[in-house]
Amino acid sequence: MTRYRITVEYDGGPFVGWQRQDNGPSVQAALEEAIGAFSGEAVTVTGAGRTDSGVHALAQVAHFDLAAAPGPATVRDAVNFHLTPAPVAVLAAAVAAPDFHARFSARERTYLYRILNRRPPLALDRGRAWRVAVPLDVDLMAEAAQALIGRHDFSSFRAAQCQAASPVKTLDGIEVTRDGEEIRLVFRARSFLHSQVRIMVGTLKMAGEGRWGRAQVAAALAARDRAAAGPTAPPEGLYLAAVRY
Amino acid sequence: MTRYRITVEYDGGPFVGWQRQDNGPSVQAALEEAIGAFSGEAVTVTGAGRTDSGVHALAQVAHFDLAAAPGPATVRDAVNFHLTPAPVAVLAAAVAAPDFHARFSARERTYLYRILNRRPPLALDRGRAWRVAVPLDVDLMAEAAQALIGRHDFSSFRAAQCQAASPVKTLDGIEVTRDGEEIRLVFRARSFLHSQVRIMVGTLKMAGEGRWGRAQVAAALAARDRAAAGPTAPPEGLYLAAVRY
Repeated sequence: MTRYRITVEYDGGPFVGWQRQDNGPSVQAALEEAIGAFSGEAVTVTGAGRTDSGVHALAQVAHFDLAAAPGPATVRDAVNFHLTPAPVAVLAAAVAAPDFHARFSARERTYLYRILNRRPPLALDRGRAWRVAVPLDVDLMAEAAQALIGRHDFSSFRAAQCQAASPVKTLDGIEVTRDGEEIRLVFRARSFLHSQVRIMVGTLKMAGEGRWGRAQVAAALAARDRAAAGPTAPPEGLYLAAVRY
Repeated sequence: MTRYRITVEYDGGPFVGWQRQDNGPSVQAALEEAIGAFSGEAVTVTGAGRTDSGVHALAQVAHFDLAAAPGPATVRDAVNFHLTPAPVAVLAAAVAAPDFHARFSARERTYLYRILNRRPPLALDRGRAWRVAVPLDVDLMAEAAQALIGRHDFSSFRAAQCQAASPVKTLDGIEVTRDGEEIRLVFRARSFLHSQVRIMVGTLKMAGEGRWGRAQVAAALAARDRAAAGPTAPPEGLYLAAVRY
């Protein structure tokens, strides 16, 4: 068997999420079917991050094995051909070491969250960003974000359905920048809990409104109680942006 | 009557174009219906640029008159409320002088054209950019674009259905820049012929491939014959970006 590593872009809108589920189309199933149509082999595709419904990827990384050993450029082009018209594209394909594992070999994941801070609804970026009408102060958001950086018990920032064995994670960095009406939040960590980024964004949005400061965010973290943190930001602003190995 | 000026963002994908037509939904009709629903008045909305089907706007400008004189913020919010779920948003509204005319008062229009220069199909930017797989050299594109700047007979860069009285237009500027895989072309002129920007983009794409230089673009212009210029680039990469008065 030859192991392949692919980098995948997708619009999460029409999918139930990355992971194959009974209740609707998933990105994983779209890829598995496209690879099967091209190779004639039944494959399982394993992704670095199990993004939720509506969450996008600029560069998800996944792996799968084939008995035949087609060239990586052929894999990329043939899978893209069979993916049409699903909004999923293989940006790159490569042969990987047999022990490469998209999920367990990952050293750092980067998520991007896009807020469009304006009153009018979104026409061009609908489904691609969170529209927040109340003015947000990015300096306050960046200051409050400092409370989250480092190794912490993130129980307050974890969805009820999270299956991680431990709520302790190390957040390597958060950057908050503004360009006109767009606010971009970038989060880096080896791994994240279920909905962790979206709950952090919902909490930092409260900081941007001036309702919470760094101390309140730190207190929410210390409470180890989901009810102590802010609301979960909607999925459509979230992008799995990079995975480092 | 009070004249209002609005700035409008839209995704051109689901529309037959800006202008009201019998064969499908138009941006103009969507706005006229939303304004009618809110005001109870039958209005005609006049836009600065009659964008084609699939062409987007970051900031189209339009005007209309109301017998009642609601405040501009009310107009913006109420029209947006009634536009839902059409992908059209009023970004700003203002009371204008009675002789303000969105189309005839315009002094300069700016169009943006987005190319994504990559082999994989587009997932996130589908319908929002032209995917060009062959590598393009932006320096060659910028050099060839110089042949188009200034006052010229643009008959070679005009769709057959163009209704302009004269093919002579003055192109104030073209900028071609690259940021990673994205190439952005920005065109500025008081006004443009039908499909002029898209034919210029189709021609400059040939320059970017190295197939045409500045001299060939100048010769295409001098021919005053549509067949002498390059193909018409697809609508989905085009955005009406700004209108100056």
